[in-house]
Amino acid sequence: MLLPDLDTPEKLKNLTIPELEQLGQEIRQFLIEKLSKTGGHLASNLGVVELTLALHYVFHSPKDKFIWDVGHQSYVHKILTGRIGRFDTLRKYKGLAGFPKRSESIHDVWETGHSSTSLSAAMGMALARDLKKEKHKVVAVIGDGALTGGMAFEALNHIGHEGTSLITILNDNEMSIAPNVGAMHNYLGKLRTDHNYRKAKEELELLLKKIPAVGGKLAKTAEKIKDTLKYLLVSGILFEELGFTYLGPIDGHNINELLECLKQASQMEGPILVHVITKKGKGYAPAEEDSYAWHGASPYKIESGEMVKKSGPPSYPSVYANTMMRIAEQDQRVIAITPAMPGGSGLTKFAERYPERFFDVGIAEQHAVTMAAGMATQGIKPVCAIYSTFLQRAYDQVVHDVARQNLNVFFAIDRAGFVGEDGETHHGLYDIGFLRSQPNMVLMMPKDENEFQHMIYTSLQYNEGPIAVRYPRGNGLGVPMDPEFTLLPIGKSEIVRPGTEVAILALGTMVQVAEEAADLLRSEGIQPMIVNARFVKPLDRDLLLRLAKEKYHVITVEEAAVSGGFGSAVLEFYAEEGYHDMVVNPIGVGDVLIEQGSVIEQRIEAGLTPEKIAKHTMDLWPKKRQRA
Amino acid sequence: MLLPDLDTPEKLKNLTIPELEQLGQEIRQFLIEKLSKTGGHLASNLGVVELTLALHYVFHSPKDKFIWDVGHQSYVHKILTGRIGRFDTLRKYKGLAGFPKRSESIHDVWETGHSSTSLSAAMGMALARDLKKEKHKVVAVIGDGALTGGMAFEALNHIGHEGTSLITILNDNEMSIAPNVGAMHNYLGKLRTDHNYRKAKEELELLLKKIPAVGGKLAKTAEKIKDTLKYLLVSGILFEELGFTYLGPIDGHNINELLECLKQASQMEGPILVHVITKKGKGYAPAEEDSYAWHGASPYKIESGEMVKKSGPPSYPSVYANTMMRIAEQDQRVIAITPAMPGGSGLTKFAERYPERFFDVGIAEQHAVTMAAGMATQGIKPVCAIYSTFLQRAYDQVVHDVARQNLNVFFAIDRAGFVGEDGETHHGLYDIGFLRSQPNMVLMMPKDENEFQHMIYTSLQYNEGPIAVRYPRGNGLGVPMDPEFTLLPIGKSEIVRPGTEVAILALGTMVQVAEEAADLLRSEGIQPMIVNARFVKPLDRDLLLRLAKEKYHVITVEEAAVSGGFGSAVLEFYAEEGYHDMVVNPIGVGDVLIEQGSVIEQRIEAGLTPEKIAKHTMDLWPKKRQRA
Repeated sequence: MLLPDLDTPEKLKNLTIPELEQLGQEIRQFLIEKLSKTGGHLASNLGVVELTLALHYVFHSPKDKFIWDVGHQSYVHKILTGRIGRFDTLRKYKGLAGFPKRSESIHDVWETGHSSTSLSAAMGMALARDLKKEKHKVVAVIGDGALTGGMAFEALNHIGHEGTSLITILNDNEMSIAPNVGAMHNYLGKLRTDHNYRKAKEELELLLKKIPAVGGKLAKTAEKIKDTLKYLLVSGILFEELGFTYLGPIDGHNINELLECLKQASQMEGPILVHVITKKGKGYAPAEEDSYAWHGASPYKIESGEMVKKSGPPSYPSVYANTMMRIAEQDQRVIAITPAMPGGSGLTKFAERYPERFFDVGIAEQHAVTMAAGMATQGIKPVCAIYSTFLQRAYDQVVHDVARQNLNVFFAIDRAGFVGEDGETHHGLYDIGFLRSQPNMVLMMPKDENEFQHMIYTSLQYNEGPIAVRYPRGNGLGVPMDPEFTLLPIGKSEIVRPGTEVAILALGTMVQVAEEAADLLRSEGIQPMIVNARFVKPLDRDLLLRLAKEKYHVITVEEAAVSGGFGSAVLEFYAEEGYHDMVVNPIGVGDVLIEQGSVIEQRIEAGLTPEKIAKHTMDLWPKKRQRA
Repeated sequence: MLLPDLDTPEKLKNLTIPELEQLGQEIRQFLIEKLSKTGGHLASNLGVVELTLALHYVFHSPKDKFIWDVGHQSYVHKILTGRIGRFDTLRKYKGLAGFPKRSESIHDVWETGHSSTSLSAAMGMALARDLKKEKHKVVAVIGDGALTGGMAFEALNHIGHEGTSLITILNDNEMSIAPNVGAMHNYLGKLRTDHNYRKAKEELELLLKKIPAVGGKLAKTAEKIKDTLKYLLVSGILFEELGFTYLGPIDGHNINELLECLKQASQMEGPILVHVITKKGKGYAPAEEDSYAWHGASPYKIESGEMVKKSGPPSYPSVYANTMMRIAEQDQRVIAITPAMPGGSGLTKFAERYPERFFDVGIAEQHAVTMAAGMATQGIKPVCAIYSTFLQRAYDQVVHDVARQNLNVFFAIDRAGFVGEDGETHHGLYDIGFLRSQPNMVLMMPKDENEFQHMIYTSLQYNEGPIAVRYPRGNGLGVPMDPEFTLLPIGKSEIVRPGTEVAILALGTMVQVAEEAADLLRSEGIQPMIVNARFVKPLDRDLLLRLAKEKYHVITVEEAAVSGGFGSAVLEFYAEEGYHDMVVNPIGVGDVLIEQGSVIEQRIEAGLTPEKIAKHTMDLWPKKRQRA
């Protein structure tokens, strides 16, 4: 066993190639075993075992900088940089993060989580190096899927223009999270597989060598055109056009080939693109066969590859998908758009049933939203299914193209609130703040999966502008599902429990938490009103005015940043209406970053628990009594 | 004169080619004359006169859809669609918008203002057409500059993949707002100008014709490779690679050539790219010579091309530039990044003095911000100069890459608040809301240009994370500039005028307005305290607590959306601190879209005037007295 002795990447450099190969197998075994217990991004990491070994062999981290796009493929890098002992805590609270983390290691120079940022970051580091007249290498590892994100192209364009020395490793695994979408993918496929194309080029080059033997004018022409041809014939012509030196494609599981190519790259100046072909799930048959299912794996049985299924109520994405199917059958206007999350957003079945009404645009949130807006101008009812955290990528498109033009786009905002194991890069905490500032926007959140289906229905019946439902990651509460859809009145909340003196206005997931708080308070003889707020925008004016007139104190609770959130909207409402003596206590996520863990642990850290809410209620109660 | 009779584009179709050419000259003359009085985007519109005529001649608007990227080149389209009579009101309050506007005309099917949205919108419309089984054409007109925006690439990629029938007109004017940046530009340049390149290809084709004459094996090889070569030799290979049929390049000022090519395009299916070469400012010598200066022209004298200079205090961008120059001289860490706005952001001089420390990344806000973050990890102090409205494009990068990693990036946020003539697509109203929710962020706004220089200095001295200064469009107040920089204490406001009972906390531009309000109130015997808030985040806790303890009523005033804004932060502060009987009245921009006009007119519409603020103060006064 070589693995246990590797506490620093420098030790790698003493190994022979057969030893590196052996080490690769050990790492693979280690990952398969560890992740069978913790779950995690198995397939992508099995795909980069040899690549990561070769990178650490050829380059010198942390002097040379490695930047892992998205970052879910950084486990091997973590193993090689002294973190092997912490893998039992992977993606757990206070444990090892599932993404690069600067506080974990000097070898993590850049944090990722969202896609397509690596090239821009790498260019920034390379320019900084040049400004400081230092000498080291900057290496970005980016998947073919991440390359469809517009900002990656912005960076390629600029790197090519400046001629900045940096090495881009295109980790082409034929599969991003969803099967890759787009012309870029076809292009990469051609580079990868078209033997005729590559053979023809070789033959052409051979042909050219022979042409000068033909005498006279023809030879002269041939001479002149050779440079042009050489230029045209480079296999990575698209990247060459953008100003990169293209190396590859090479087999990303062949240590020899990798070392040779990376050494070559390390000796070159200017922008280099190394095209590496890898296989997601490499070395573990179940993951090789279905790398999509094994992208983010639950714990599993190693022998059978059977994932431990979480039983429980239907998940929000599955309710979303079922509801969409039912409505789409009735309403031809309804189409679905996802930026590379057909599975995550539960739309796989929809895509099978309505292929012509389903659009996976790749990792391209900006395009997704504006394309939806374009459709909406023509009477189509597009549904943009985007995670809250990724909607940040399309903020300007929401503002400038959808809300400002008041177009009928429905945003299905998945993973709003805490997301658990993915941690602080993926929480959906800011959407309330950045959406409710938009004129024309309607924004709601359901208290359970049954209400969720009614909100989807309501959104698709609504034709007066943009409308959004934010909903949490994971399973519903297990409530019965109404067989018929109900149209919810826009801007009306629901009183879940009547009460006196204090009203808790809870949004979405926090309704259940507020009810539990009320249960705790019963023994104290305190009975707050519990309101399912439903709408962040428009607010339920009638209820808010009634609460003011009846001199309730109000607590708002939301699984979102308290800054600019739902509670803030309630404060603004009372200020504008002149109820300046209204007691409002907004509870939400404070000005903090909350790392990976379970959603429950994250809520505890943020103070979003029945106990804390009960305490807030108690705190308000005596004051109320004093005044009365 | 043909122009006066043209009230619908259908009439164009009766004209002969010489008549179309004459009409082009009449339109050019009309634009030069009208814009000499109103100002406006002269150069870009002079560049598309023939192109717009040809588009309306070949296609049938509004059945066929024209989408104008950015939209500042839509004046000719407006002239041809019945709006010629309104040009005296161009970009004026309640007048003709400077961008396409759906409420103005059925021929404006999509609104623009921000760059790079046209391809996504066009694809949405084309897909909607196909879903509805309709037959019409969708035509997007996009400049070479807008093509550097990542979302345009996301769209190209997806259009190529889907094979959607739509026509992209690449209006290649060699010049976006700033000289174009990036590899894409070089590539377009090659298509446009490299005679050797084009000639070599022709010769190669000729050569290939001759090769079969050579006998034996060689001929067979040559036969096989012909298809490959054909594929490789298409001049628009980058676009062809992405799945587009490439037509061009053609002369965008030659009506004949345009009509022929557009007719051809109109008869083809699938994604078509028509490469049209135009000259910005075409037909007006001063604008041809310096299309950059004539991008957004002030009123000018036609004969001399002399623009009417607004005299007055130094503009905010010029203060920014001068301050940056002074600090950069002392501090080698300081570098400047702009996404295609070197002039707008006043950095032209900086670029000349420090070419190696200046980066114009093209229209690529996402890349700009993340590249800055990458630099900051290496001890460089990057300054991102971005208009507030365009920072929306990089929101996720601010959240995920800068604020979350707590990196020392300084955001110089120009055009915060109302922007005047560009109207509702360009106002900077949401930055406070979307930035103050971010942990680690510091956000401020200066009351005048002198304080602005101190804020820039303070930001560049600050090394504890991201820091941002938002500042308004246009000129300062004409206050004296301190010769030395002052370090402002983070999170401390400034009491501008002492007063009693009511405190007006004004942010940035609103300090002067609040002072004028106080002047109005003096005759009423009311003397509010006027506070220059300076900081939105962190708030001045000490002052806010003092105001609470001394039982002031508080009015906040900001030139930004009131939803989630500065006033909202003050409300949240008092709620969190338990000052539930604190009277706070937040004044800002309500839930409305405010169209083009002067900044003053826009402030009046939003209620941000001394009179309105005086009234709010009066309204609070008697209540206060009653309680006292």
